[in-house]
Amino acid sequence: MELTGVPRRIARAQELMSERDLDFLFVAPSSDMIYMFDGPSHASERLALVMIPRDGKPQVVAPQLEYSRFADKADIAQIHTWPETAQPVDLVAELLSGVDRPRVAVSDTMWSVFLVRMLEAIPDAQWSSATPIIRELRMVKDESEIEKLRVAGVAADRAWDEFATTASIIGKTEREAAMILTELRRKHGLDVTGIGICASGPNGANPHHSTGDRILQKGDAVVFDFGGTIDNYHADVTRTAHLGEPSDEYRKVYEIVLRANRVALGEFRLGNTCQDVDRAARKVITDAGYGEYFIHRVGHGLGLDGHEEPYLVEGNDLPLQVGMVFSDEPGVYLPGKFGIRVEDAVAVRESGGELLNHCNRELTVMS
Amino acid sequence: MELTGVPRRIARAQELMSERDLDFLFVAPSSDMIYMFDGPSHASERLALVMIPRDGKPQVVAPQLEYSRFADKADIAQIHTWPETAQPVDLVAELLSGVDRPRVAVSDTMWSVFLVRMLEAIPDAQWSSATPIIRELRMVKDESEIEKLRVAGVAADRAWDEFATTASIIGKTEREAAMILTELRRKHGLDVTGIGICASGPNGANPHHSTGDRILQKGDAVVFDFGGTIDNYHADVTRTAHLGEPSDEYRKVYEIVLRANRVALGEFRLGNTCQDVDRAARKVITDAGYGEYFIHRVGHGLGLDGHEEPYLVEGNDLPLQVGMVFSDEPGVYLPGKFGIRVEDAVAVRESGGELLNHCNRELTVMS
Repeated sequence: MELTGVPRRIARAQELMSERDLDFLFVAPSSDMIYMFDGPSHASERLALVMIPRDGKPQVVAPQLEYSRFADKADIAQIHTWPETAQPVDLVAELLSGVDRPRVAVSDTMWSVFLVRMLEAIPDAQWSSATPIIRELRMVKDESEIEKLRVAGVAADRAWDEFATTASIIGKTEREAAMILTELRRKHGLDVTGIGICASGPNGANPHHSTGDRILQKGDAVVFDFGGTIDNYHADVTRTAHLGEPSDEYRKVYEIVLRANRVALGEFRLGNTCQDVDRAARKVITDAGYGEYFIHRVGHGLGLDGHEEPYLVEGNDLPLQVGMVFSDEPGVYLPGKFGIRVEDAVAVRESGGELLNHCNRELTVMS
Repeated sequence: MELTGVPRRIARAQELMSERDLDFLFVAPSSDMIYMFDGPSHASERLALVMIPRDGKPQVVAPQLEYSRFADKADIAQIHTWPETAQPVDLVAELLSGVDRPRVAVSDTMWSVFLVRMLEAIPDAQWSSATPIIRELRMVKDESEIEKLRVAGVAADRAWDEFATTASIIGKTEREAAMILTELRRKHGLDVTGIGICASGPNGANPHHSTGDRILQKGDAVVFDFGGTIDNYHADVTRTAHLGEPSDEYRKVYEIVLRANRVALGEFRLGNTCQDVDRAARKVITDAGYGEYFIHRVGHGLGLDGHEEPYLVEGNDLPLQVGMVFSDEPGVYLPGKFGIRVEDAVAVRESGGELLNHCNRELTVMS
């Protein structure tokens, strides 16, 4: 019988662990925990950990209080709970005590406080990152995952199109404008935790601007970078709107960025590597004379995390595979003037890149 | 001139580092970063780190993209940025290369992926948890911090009182009921990221129940555990409402839990330790015959994190100090039946515990 779901993912991880001679994979609450174990994603000061051995059943170490979050896994894992007054890392050490110099890979976002305690409690262990194992699994999405990303993308598209055609934002602060878009994201079904990026005028020249109190005014370019999740899968979209009639320079740069976005879309095909997509977008912008103002990689993986492996960055020669999903987000950032970024999600298919976002990406003027 | 703000916090950390013979304190984006450096709290796959040496200026390692988030600290720190294609841990190693066998304490929530890379890049370093340093600073709040916690508490109180007196929740799902309270939290000024806990009927017997699709019905006890932040400081309140006329058993247990909450409140005084507060609440519940159903510690520190050091738990003999702020949240959880928890925030003052929540905590019936 072919395995599916969590048992299949665990079995595949165990194959990879075997190839890499790893004894244990430690998965802490995070998107990795959702993926590998259908478990909780919320990390806290109370250690919860799924310890996957190279062979056999996973062991779960969980606070007694959170037993219920793992109870449905009692058939596929051995669950060890610890009471409020115990030291859970001692329990982890005990469970590893039968293995000499255990080779342990830990999931990326496990809190260092736990790893530091483990360094002390299991001094002969050899520690490494779980990225090579978990990335291998997570980076290729199955059809049900791509469908969830598509649904999230559609919701984000609807939010943007409604926003761009109905909202009046001149005179509002960045935060107020972002809140309008946030309400629309919620209305269209996205679970939203932050208000996203609204970067106006010169603030737009900072790709990671923190949405603030600057008042939007006629003549501003405004970058909106927004997302949210449906069923834990992320949308991630950026659109840049202009308030009032744009300058010739804005029109020119907008055209360049949009062209880079489209050229990159054409590169999500088998035979290419991650860095090829970055290079293609970068070439468009460099050839147009703005290369020094495209100051970030062209994209990142997208799935259970808003940013995840693999990254579309110079130096990453990982070949694209069917089922990978990425952001495609070239940008040009002119210090003191404005920034422009156009971002869509793209799934790699046999036939090339499939766009997961369809909201209007032509030059947009808002009031 | 007396130092204030970030320079003062850094100077105090350096004193503690000196006492403990630590060479560096590594602070990653988190509430620790907000506290120690007024820096960003959002952790990502791009390493950002404040490295505080025992003497002298902090060094910041930040992605070029995020320089602006640290730019205002250029006078008190040396800022090193790394481009998209670089390996930032190599930069960290280089900055430490002058120190033989450096003793480094890392902030609790730094991602393990960075620590694992550092273990490799700086093999002679000795790693420890930054908790003993940062806890010492953060656990005692100054007046401006307590004021922020008070403001957040008032907002949560208003949300609850409006909810309890106006909402009709019988026939709604847990999620729908929690969403009503969430909207009210937003209305009253809290920044909210999740919908909080709504645990109804038998689900209430799980203190960390994940709010779900169970339909609320007459006869249910419903535990609402909710919070949110204002200016990064947390509210954390729990109230339990009964739908329709309560049973005698519910009335009896409610009275016991409320008494435990009040008795604990009286114990937030100088001369007591953290575990004394837990013991006092536990004694009330144990003496009433329900000790085995009070399955968690009585409280946690509250501030920039919803749960933070110190914890009010058996085994913690740390003395209470003026300026500490805690949750006071005894509960009784009867499997298959119901749970009851009553939670307030309490600040330790010279004169004893100051309640930061005032919403109605008497037995509440909703429809």
